[in-house]
Amino acid sequence: MATPELDDRTTAQLAFLVEADRLKAVERANPLVDGSRRENSAEHSWHIALMAAVLAERSDGPVDLGRALCLCLVHDLVEIDAGDTPPWDTAGRATKAEREAAAADRLFALLPADQAATFRGWWDESEAAETPEARLARAVDSLAPLVVNHAEGGRLWREKGRTEADVRARNARLEGWVPALVPVVDALVDDAVEKGWL
Amino acid sequence: MATPELDDRTTAQLAFLVEADRLKAVERANPLVDGSRRENSAEHSWHIALMAAVLAERSDGPVDLGRALCLCLVHDLVEIDAGDTPPWDTAGRATKAEREAAAADRLFALLPADQAATFRGWWDESEAAETPEARLARAVDSLAPLVVNHAEGGRLWREKGRTEADVRARNARLEGWVPALVPVVDALVDDAVEKGWL
Repeated sequence: MATPELDDRTTAQLAFLVEADRLKAVERANPLVDGSRRENSAEHSWHIALMAAVLAERSDGPVDLGRALCLCLVHDLVEIDAGDTPPWDTAGRATKAEREAAAADRLFALLPADQAATFRGWWDESEAAETPEARLARAVDSLAPLVVNHAEGGRLWREKGRTEADVRARNARLEGWVPALVPVVDALVDDAVEKGWL
Repeated sequence: MATPELDDRTTAQLAFLVEADRLKAVERANPLVDGSRRENSAEHSWHIALMAAVLAERSDGPVDLGRALCLCLVHDLVEIDAGDTPPWDTAGRATKAEREAAAADRLFALLPADQAATFRGWWDESEAAETPEARLARAVDSLAPLVVNHAEGGRLWREKGRTEADVRARNARLEGWVPALVPVVDALVDDAVEKGWL
């Protein structure tokens, strides 16, 4: 990427953006709604950002949507090094935090120092899940698999032997993040149970 | 998607978000940087939103980054119906505006009326390319193919017989959108010409 005409700041920004492209090749467990293939972490990140824009109104207090979108955009970048770790990967879950922190150290450092601090701050904020923006970002990240698997017809749930209790437990976190989305979880899980998908 | 427990507003929001999933299946001409396949419009939308967050500082005036990100997130949704129309598709370019406007009419109307107006407004704003936010969104949308094709090694340019003049003409629009990004275009095109890719 280095070209003689570009200053150091621009070179660093382009290096980060080119490296980020690799998120398009990180495969997640969840399918596209049309069932044609599994989704990747880049298109998933776009989808949850769109979900945040649509569902921000459910937050129980003011939310800076722009900041929430920044959290959505960067939250999975660490998977370029660490891969996606689905909830049933018990061994992977044990080392997930450590692997993802190492990835964050490497990836955000590609940016110029001031932007590295800003983007790393967004990732740390998302992980901590304490601010209204982070709680919204984490809520849509948790809700998205439920929405796409329900719309697809629940094949992944059947293949993995996921139970109603598994999916309810996974989404119980929404109570602390965006409580107004809990009825959405309940409705989709109830419907999936009724249809025999869970 | 309709489940008996959900109110009309939530049902409409989920219907829109499920329909939006189809953008993951819209193939673009441009490759991933690793050359493994062509990118799709959903992951491209994520990538340009990330580019907007990194490069917003180049805008020649204040930019509401959150609003610019919203424009990036929705700008390609119309391709669900209209498909991607690359610059060398002359026949497609002649009908592009009409096809995309029809798609916008259908897709944004899936949302509750107030959100349909907001999201359609973002799309219209992006198309008009007049506000600072829209000029930033359009600039990164134009710059992204240059960045990924350059990083990939220029295979698409050679396959399509793209010339230096083609790529410079395509990106001449950045002069009116984010002039500070013109040197980035020049540097990448110069380097591609030197390497024999254009």
